[in-house]
Amino acid sequence: MEFSLFQTDGLARRGELALSHGKVQTPIFMPVGSAATVKAMAPRELEEIGAEIILGNTYHLYLRPGTDIIGQFGGLHDFMGWEKPILTDSGGYQVFSLSNLNKITPEGVHFKSHIDGSACFIGPEEAMEIQAKLNSDIVMCFDECVPYPSQRDYVLNSVAMTIDWARKCKEKHSGNKNALFGIIQGGMFLDIRKNCTHGLTDIGFDGYALGGLSVGEPQEEMLSVIAETAPLMPADKPRYLMGVGTPLDIIRAVALGIDMFDCVMPTRNARNGSAFTRGGKLNIRNARFKADERPVEEGCGCWCCRNFSRAYVRHLFNAGEILGARLLSYHNIYFYINFMRDIRSSIESGTFAAFKKDFEAAYVTD
Amino acid sequence: MEFSLFQTDGLARRGELALSHGKVQTPIFMPVGSAATVKAMAPRELEEIGAEIILGNTYHLYLRPGTDIIGQFGGLHDFMGWEKPILTDSGGYQVFSLSNLNKITPEGVHFKSHIDGSACFIGPEEAMEIQAKLNSDIVMCFDECVPYPSQRDYVLNSVAMTIDWARKCKEKHSGNKNALFGIIQGGMFLDIRKNCTHGLTDIGFDGYALGGLSVGEPQEEMLSVIAETAPLMPADKPRYLMGVGTPLDIIRAVALGIDMFDCVMPTRNARNGSAFTRGGKLNIRNARFKADERPVEEGCGCWCCRNFSRAYVRHLFNAGEILGARLLSYHNIYFYINFMRDIRSSIESGTFAAFKKDFEAAYVTD
Repeated sequence: MEFSLFQTDGLARRGELALSHGKVQTPIFMPVGSAATVKAMAPRELEEIGAEIILGNTYHLYLRPGTDIIGQFGGLHDFMGWEKPILTDSGGYQVFSLSNLNKITPEGVHFKSHIDGSACFIGPEEAMEIQAKLNSDIVMCFDECVPYPSQRDYVLNSVAMTIDWARKCKEKHSGNKNALFGIIQGGMFLDIRKNCTHGLTDIGFDGYALGGLSVGEPQEEMLSVIAETAPLMPADKPRYLMGVGTPLDIIRAVALGIDMFDCVMPTRNARNGSAFTRGGKLNIRNARFKADERPVEEGCGCWCCRNFSRAYVRHLFNAGEILGARLLSYHNIYFYINFMRDIRSSIESGTFAAFKKDFEAAYVTD
Repeated sequence: MEFSLFQTDGLARRGELALSHGKVQTPIFMPVGSAATVKAMAPRELEEIGAEIILGNTYHLYLRPGTDIIGQFGGLHDFMGWEKPILTDSGGYQVFSLSNLNKITPEGVHFKSHIDGSACFIGPEEAMEIQAKLNSDIVMCFDECVPYPSQRDYVLNSVAMTIDWARKCKEKHSGNKNALFGIIQGGMFLDIRKNCTHGLTDIGFDGYALGGLSVGEPQEEMLSVIAETAPLMPADKPRYLMGVGTPLDIIRAVALGIDMFDCVMPTRNARNGSAFTRGGKLNIRNARFKADERPVEEGCGCWCCRNFSRAYVRHLFNAGEILGARLLSYHNIYFYINFMRDIRSSIESGTFAAFKKDFEAAYVTD
């Protein structure tokens, strides 16, 4: 994997990742397709929108359909019909948040599947084996994502284990042409974050992620961890803020030097009838849109907004029709992808600060 | 509306309908979009498949979103983003099958909405007013669809009312440029079907539909009603068999001189994981497809079959992912549309009987 940093504007960075399945322009937003599908979307629609890289999830795909089946297809790309880059989360987050956890050992985690209760085990080596079969362009280290809030002692021990697992991941990953990213944990403890960052950079990875953020803490606390930790991350490697976030989270994290983002928000909100617009969120179920002939977002050039009205999309949601979820998922992903495109342009033209200020002023939060 | 009959092959007919929003080649299958959306599909996908006309439903659209809202958009086409012809069912069938029926009077039907229990009334005049606001290319008369089986006396009285309503529909429809079709009822009583056909042809309509079939009777009984009634229907007008049906129903009805079909089967079956193929139905949830790299239907040229495997579609259904319903809905509608295209070609080349025989031999029923 190659990472080229073209330009900076303040701390904001404009770069490019060269991955096994193609190039990706940063800062980038990666739509989430945990179960080998970005919910309600088809691959050709993601291409049409201009998505450059999507996420898959080790935990979900390991449980269903199983890694052997995806391996039989040569990996996730052919299995799901997506030819561009894929990043796979290591499963760490889901093992701790979704499964019935049995026991954490230095070798990994014993847990029960949330689907059928079957006994499973994933450790750093297993996470690498699974992701090798998925053949994802970016492989993530197996880590423990500690909850918010967590006791200092717990976080200290957990981070030591995460670093140890990262070392094992690096060894096991050896010979795999795809990129491997380390995940910086440490909760809200800045000194532990710092030590974790040093521990991981000593091992050496193709990129570094900030994990364990956007887990319930106030935005200021998240931004403070990013502000303190990002400068410690190698400048010549991509920086990925996992599971984040709202448009305001993203633009503020870009301002602190973050390059990559993923979040279920655009698709999950869409299925609940919530649309992102430059003016803030809009709940399409609202009765005031009953006869509204305007598109979901005025001025938006997406397929949904060029062809359908708020009244129609609202009707689809009221009637429980699948097309409603499809149209808002499309619009919301388009919104995020174009938002990142605009962020990149503003960095290129050295106007990121002004773009950020204007965006923040226009974006009304609830 | 103009109907041109190009060619016949036995009783099978090859024709063309010239409607307000375009031309339609017959025999035709019309995908059903009751609530202003063909379930799980987008209009541009229907166009890509080559659908020439779709159905909307007066009852559903009257209740939700309401005819005034659709009228504000100038009709159903602009509301739902579909530019080609639309046929709307009159709501008769749904008033009798879905609502809580209160009272049938010579003026129409008092019922309670199945959505919110509100008191409603639709009679022939109301059905015409609603469909005029929907601006459907083909408007259907308001009728009573009697259940199977029904008593002869009940059917006799019901058909007299249906003919009276048809007369009122014709009067009310006067001045509307769109086509108006009469609906022949009469249950399984051939003499009542005959009298109804004469009653309606005396009034005179742009086309004639056979209603009240495929309501639970054996296929032979349905085919026998078609065989006896179709010859009584004017040869120079299109003949529409409502709500039918399986591929075998359709090809056998074409052989008896039917021109138009609609059915929820391709989309409803799709959402249940059932795919139509030339070899019969295939349940994609079946464990034998777990690692099957073949497309849903081998040799099929549709978007689903060109890009995705049975193993992947099965995985999507197992994981409850929307894309599963999307892919099979696409495939099934493609199957029906192409099936009709092949039927039309065989009539054009005078080989319909052979095509029918081959199709029936290959199509395995459960």
